[in-house]
Amino acid sequence: MGKNLLIAHGGAPTAVINASLYGAVEEAKKSGKVEHIYGAIFGSAGILTENFVDLSAVPEAELAKLLVTPGSAIGTSRTQLEKPEYEKMVQVLLKHDIHYVLFTGGNGSMDTCGKLKAACAEAGTDICVCGIPKTIDNDISVIDHAPGYGSAAYFQAQCVAEIAQDVRSLPIHVVIIEAMGRNAGWITAASALAREKCGDAPDIICLPEVAFDEEKFLAKVKEIHEKKGGVVVVASEYLHKADGSAVAPPLYQEGRARYDGDLGSFLAKLVISKLGIKARSEKPGIWGRASIQSQSPVDRDEAVRMGALACKAVLEGKSGYMAGMMRKSTAPYEVEDVLVPIEEVMLTERTMPREFISEDGFDVTEAFCDWCRPLLGADLPQFADFKGEFNLEGVKLH
Amino acid sequence: MGKNLLIAHGGAPTAVINASLYGAVEEAKKSGKVEHIYGAIFGSAGILTENFVDLSAVPEAELAKLLVTPGSAIGTSRTQLEKPEYEKMVQVLLKHDIHYVLFTGGNGSMDTCGKLKAACAEAGTDICVCGIPKTIDNDISVIDHAPGYGSAAYFQAQCVAEIAQDVRSLPIHVVIIEAMGRNAGWITAASALAREKCGDAPDIICLPEVAFDEEKFLAKVKEIHEKKGGVVVVASEYLHKADGSAVAPPLYQEGRARYDGDLGSFLAKLVISKLGIKARSEKPGIWGRASIQSQSPVDRDEAVRMGALACKAVLEGKSGYMAGMMRKSTAPYEVEDVLVPIEEVMLTERTMPREFISEDGFDVTEAFCDWCRPLLGADLPQFADFKGEFNLEGVKLH
Repeated sequence: MGKNLLIAHGGAPTAVINASLYGAVEEAKKSGKVEHIYGAIFGSAGILTENFVDLSAVPEAELAKLLVTPGSAIGTSRTQLEKPEYEKMVQVLLKHDIHYVLFTGGNGSMDTCGKLKAACAEAGTDICVCGIPKTIDNDISVIDHAPGYGSAAYFQAQCVAEIAQDVRSLPIHVVIIEAMGRNAGWITAASALAREKCGDAPDIICLPEVAFDEEKFLAKVKEIHEKKGGVVVVASEYLHKADGSAVAPPLYQEGRARYDGDLGSFLAKLVISKLGIKARSEKPGIWGRASIQSQSPVDRDEAVRMGALACKAVLEGKSGYMAGMMRKSTAPYEVEDVLVPIEEVMLTERTMPREFISEDGFDVTEAFCDWCRPLLGADLPQFADFKGEFNLEGVKLH
Repeated sequence: MGKNLLIAHGGAPTAVINASLYGAVEEAKKSGKVEHIYGAIFGSAGILTENFVDLSAVPEAELAKLLVTPGSAIGTSRTQLEKPEYEKMVQVLLKHDIHYVLFTGGNGSMDTCGKLKAACAEAGTDICVCGIPKTIDNDISVIDHAPGYGSAAYFQAQCVAEIAQDVRSLPIHVVIIEAMGRNAGWITAASALAREKCGDAPDIICLPEVAFDEEKFLAKVKEIHEKKGGVVVVASEYLHKADGSAVAPPLYQEGRARYDGDLGSFLAKLVISKLGIKARSEKPGIWGRASIQSQSPVDRDEAVRMGALACKAVLEGKSGYMAGMMRKSTAPYEVEDVLVPIEEVMLTERTMPREFISEDGFDVTEAFCDWCRPLLGADLPQFADFKGEFNLEGVKLH
């Protein structure tokens, strides 16, 4: 009886998590070393309940659809596991002759991955466990960036570029676009790439790395509104004040249950009530991690490669590593594929470095744009515009 | 000295308002009857301030970009005009030898269009004024549908289809997607087209044509959540109760200034607090009228044609009409291009007919889907899915 391989997804999906699955499955097939390639249905929950799909039996044409399918085709979970559950997992792996395990996910899933590796060793098995990085937030430490981020960045830049055209057309209000990324501003920051084809929007970028100063924010909005009529603000979903408290009051709070408030909506209300200027908010929300239309081809290719790299590692008997990429050069864009010891990335979090944030804290730097640009994988579209420089003089707009 | 033509945009932009501009400009050029083709910068405000761009001088390659540019490349406005302003407009038209005027817009702009036509006649001029329909809301009377709607419908269906994949992957919460369309549910309804490739999402559709019943809504959410874990609700941005009051409290209200509250956010809070189920909301908002990625090719072609048709009408000396389309057949899709007397569409509003709404009011009918499908202009993508029927038994998801 041959050796089997199991792949599980953890955490929220991305636009390319299925592409990593594809990369891993193809590598396992090619190796000839694996009898069954199992997918755990709904992540670690699927391992514990022995709920597997045999991906080695899926026709190639159906597998290829993984490259352009948002969400997770095998499901995912966010389960926090306790020690007895890791021990049970090892028993399940042994029962199903699973010698190789791959976990695709972010910081939390790499933690699971590292603990499962330890549990396998403790039980005296030679099961190999490796991780495939995945996060739209780009907050995994050590590596240059994770698969999932490039597509989320493209989505964000595209969204802002298109909304900016709308605001330029009818410059009567302040539009707040809420971006994903609770503690790390990488996605919010990518909005700056919209500028290259759309004049000067976004006008203000509010990152979670910078304490929100209401007075300074309102002064900036007022100044830009007087000059341009329409103002485009991009704000990260969870901004905090200097004292660490949330800017937007919670949507719901009772006991330990707490749901973040809608930051964009809160800022729109702030602008209306304090400045008397029309304002509204937009929140594409989880669509930003689930859009194939905005999938970055660079991101997709890298996701496939990371899946294949982690698969190759376990098949070579390596355990306790996460596949990753280090930036070798930005122009031309070049990365080096590496294996990172899993201990270095378990539950750590990487936020935007100071040199990527502008001095006044309401923008990003050219260094960030240079770093981010190649990850989008495609140019933003060019638009026609015959309005010339905006001039409110004598024009009454409603 | 030759005769000139003027085009002005009114109301909010769509993904194809620039395509109508392109169609009108090309028709005017082809006719050989027009010396200058002017675009009014920022709509009727641009007419009153004599702020024009000469589109006849723009290179063809630049004009062609109009087909794939969101927003309005000549700007737009929402100005409500008084009688003296119409009289002033006529003087501006005479001063610039403008014999032909085209207004692109919705109900409000068709009202402007009709009043300008009357003012031109009253002043004893032979200036011809016609309208080009444009609205994402699809609420213009008489005609089958207006350019702008097909792209907004595709955007909506695409958004719901992709988010549905995310929710199926990690079915732990209720996701409320807020759709545009204040009084008419045409855009919200288009979400149903997402179903054809994505299982059964959206699970609930809340239209503004149906009075919102909180108890029935919560009961339905609870029932679906027990069965599927994840629930996808699409709700129109402005739902009302049986007594006509808004479901969501206003974002801001003081004196006559009133800003609608975030309906999606309100419903998410309702689900959390009344049912104790995780919930969140998404609101792509004005992106839904500004996305070229989701532009329907059928919509774009029709927008070009409507621009050309209205242009042809004024050049033939017709005045006081709006270009429009009547449905001749749905399978195969066929429309007849017509000219509608402008009086029939001024300031009227068309909502969803009863036969397009399901009996329980939380869905649309197959008749609506059949009517809407050809307007999307493209099939929704097919996704891979290996999860099988969702079964919560024994699976603890977080």
